[in-house]
Amino acid sequence: MVNDKMYELGSKRSVIREIFEYAKKRASEIGSENIFDFSIGNPSVPAPDCVNETLIDLIKNENSVKLHGYSSAQGDASVRKIIADYINKRFGTTVSGDNIYMTTGAAAALSIVLKSVATENSEYITFAPYFTEYKVFVEATGSKLVVLPSEEKTFDMDFDALENAINENTKAVIINSPNNPSGVVYPEKSIIRLSEILKKYSEKYNHIIYLIADEPYRELVYDGIDVPYPICYYDNTFVCYSYSKSLSLPGERIGYICVSDRMENWQTHYAAVCGAGRALGYVCATTLFQFLAAKCVDKTSDVSIYKKNRDMLYNALSEYGYECVHPDGAFYLFMKALEDDAYAFCEKAKKYELLLVPGDDFGCPGYVRIAYCVQPSQIERALPSFKKLIEEYNK
Amino acid sequence: MVNDKMYELGSKRSVIREIFEYAKKRASEIGSENIFDFSIGNPSVPAPDCVNETLIDLIKNENSVKLHGYSSAQGDASVRKIIADYINKRFGTTVSGDNIYMTTGAAAALSIVLKSVATENSEYITFAPYFTEYKVFVEATGSKLVVLPSEEKTFDMDFDALENAINENTKAVIINSPNNPSGVVYPEKSIIRLSEILKKYSEKYNHIIYLIADEPYRELVYDGIDVPYPICYYDNTFVCYSYSKSLSLPGERIGYICVSDRMENWQTHYAAVCGAGRALGYVCATTLFQFLAAKCVDKTSDVSIYKKNRDMLYNALSEYGYECVHPDGAFYLFMKALEDDAYAFCEKAKKYELLLVPGDDFGCPGYVRIAYCVQPSQIERALPSFKKLIEEYNK
Repeated sequence: MVNDKMYELGSKRSVIREIFEYAKKRASEIGSENIFDFSIGNPSVPAPDCVNETLIDLIKNENSVKLHGYSSAQGDASVRKIIADYINKRFGTTVSGDNIYMTTGAAAALSIVLKSVATENSEYITFAPYFTEYKVFVEATGSKLVVLPSEEKTFDMDFDALENAINENTKAVIINSPNNPSGVVYPEKSIIRLSEILKKYSEKYNHIIYLIADEPYRELVYDGIDVPYPICYYDNTFVCYSYSKSLSLPGERIGYICVSDRMENWQTHYAAVCGAGRALGYVCATTLFQFLAAKCVDKTSDVSIYKKNRDMLYNALSEYGYECVHPDGAFYLFMKALEDDAYAFCEKAKKYELLLVPGDDFGCPGYVRIAYCVQPSQIERALPSFKKLIEEYNK
Repeated sequence: MVNDKMYELGSKRSVIREIFEYAKKRASEIGSENIFDFSIGNPSVPAPDCVNETLIDLIKNENSVKLHGYSSAQGDASVRKIIADYINKRFGTTVSGDNIYMTTGAAAALSIVLKSVATENSEYITFAPYFTEYKVFVEATGSKLVVLPSEEKTFDMDFDALENAINENTKAVIINSPNNPSGVVYPEKSIIRLSEILKKYSEKYNHIIYLIADEPYRELVYDGIDVPYPICYYDNTFVCYSYSKSLSLPGERIGYICVSDRMENWQTHYAAVCGAGRALGYVCATTLFQFLAAKCVDKTSDVSIYKKNRDMLYNALSEYGYECVHPDGAFYLFMKALEDDAYAFCEKAKKYELLLVPGDDFGCPGYVRIAYCVQPSQIERALPSFKKLIEEYNK
């Protein structure tokens, strides 16, 4: 009687969820300090002080009916203006509040954008490794996700594969930089090349091929690395942003869509975004957190802890002999498994109490994801286990 | 290039939104105290003290990473248990936390339930007047909404029409009691009759016909009226609940789905609900407001103000000669227009600065909705205008 596809989506426990349950059980057996759970991408750094201070200030001083009331469907006008101004100041763009649509996080932003542009037989292209829910969101609109490989070693986009894959049904390319799960940031030259290809094939097929930039990790970059702002390079871009990671608020679900003001007929696209939000049952993004986002628009959590973790982990694992992709951002390390079957590798790692996620679900068999959004002490305690694990393989 | 349907949904300004913009403009011309806006269903009573007190307490005393972190997709387990226990205590049911799925409000709850059960050619039945977004949500799943009339005068369900309309494609009946826009509460005998009909036709067509109860107004009832809890009468029921009106938090988007534990294979249905939430891009309901809902589970705003408004308005308008449906709940009065064309009537009312919503969008031409979630003083000031309006018609 139910929708089979929905049942399948809801009943198939994700690998990460399985690991989560195992970790809880194992922690009760041997103590949580002896289990090294690197499976979940939940920020370990608390929200910056401005978050709770602002929330309390809003609650104490704002009119309750306004603070907790409906905002307009696209978000409070003053909030959208503040965000647009901030984007312009930072990236030299020319968007206005009318280009911003507030959402309950990046997942909602993506779902809404996909629904707004989906027509019959739409295809979306992304590069492996990719965030697994892209497939779910794309298929929910009746469309198809085409997954292309990345370049070996660099994990940059494979542009030859892209040119081969684009066809008349291609609706958009979805990128995620910094990337979950590889931590890779696409350099400016890659965004320029991508943009050129999209222009070329938009002309060839005589319809827009959009760029959808999923950017929850934009603020989590290290060593002064620059993350090019896609709207500056390609007109037909939707940016899907979230404050989940930058302000350590993943459960509060607040983010936005920025519809580029340089997009052809952007007003039409913006209206379709509003319609898609409505059709999916999104009434408005949580008002309290809309106001919060505006007040904390230029703040981030203390990302220096993630950098410390990244350095400690990347340096040690490389020294032990593991092959890792160097992550310039996010809080994930993508590492080659020590055997072809990443599931088998993860099972062996478990014997050393190391909980890692196989890359298969991210479209990259033979790799594992290590989420280093943990306490630095966990990494310190876990390193000897990583060492023993590779020694077992090297025997 | 965009999805035409989404563009249409997003660009067609709702009548209520038009009125809202007009009200702003008119208020700037003649002063907001001279314009009587009865168009919007935004709670006028502030959230009860427990809301802001609890929010501040949670923010000050809970661990930030937990408080603002992801909950499990279906909602925090402790929150779901508290809500289930509360439901059981109040209605004598036997649900558990495993029957509760936390949502970002009732709109999300409805969208998710509809998506979870939709199969090919699904039809849903509701009774006019009905909340206009039902059509949007139903059609977003590729299904059809069938709108049936209500009984004259009582605005109870028309059961003959229901028996005629149910067919092999009927997937569910959607009810909304207390009703937006009529304020009518279905009495127990009607819920029993509905339940009998659904059982009869489920057997006839050899598949479940669900009951979907949309209950954002459950707590807004007056004179001790009882709102029967549908799960107690019909096993195959989904309850879609929201704290928007009961706690005056419409912008914060918090509610839940209760999948009856007496539903055939309820675990399968619950899994499909989880899958549908995932497919629509709902990651989890806002954690801060999940915890809030649990702490304020038995609290409501001061609904006595709505009752005062209801009495003042209903009594005066009836006395003037208007024909009104007596509202036992919600904060809407549904009134017969003084001419067949409710749009024309609303235009005439505008001359007296009365902003009313034509019933056409709710499936009831010839009626208007008066949202009395306003300050009592607005009603006092508006009554002479209502009087002059009917006098103009009676000339």
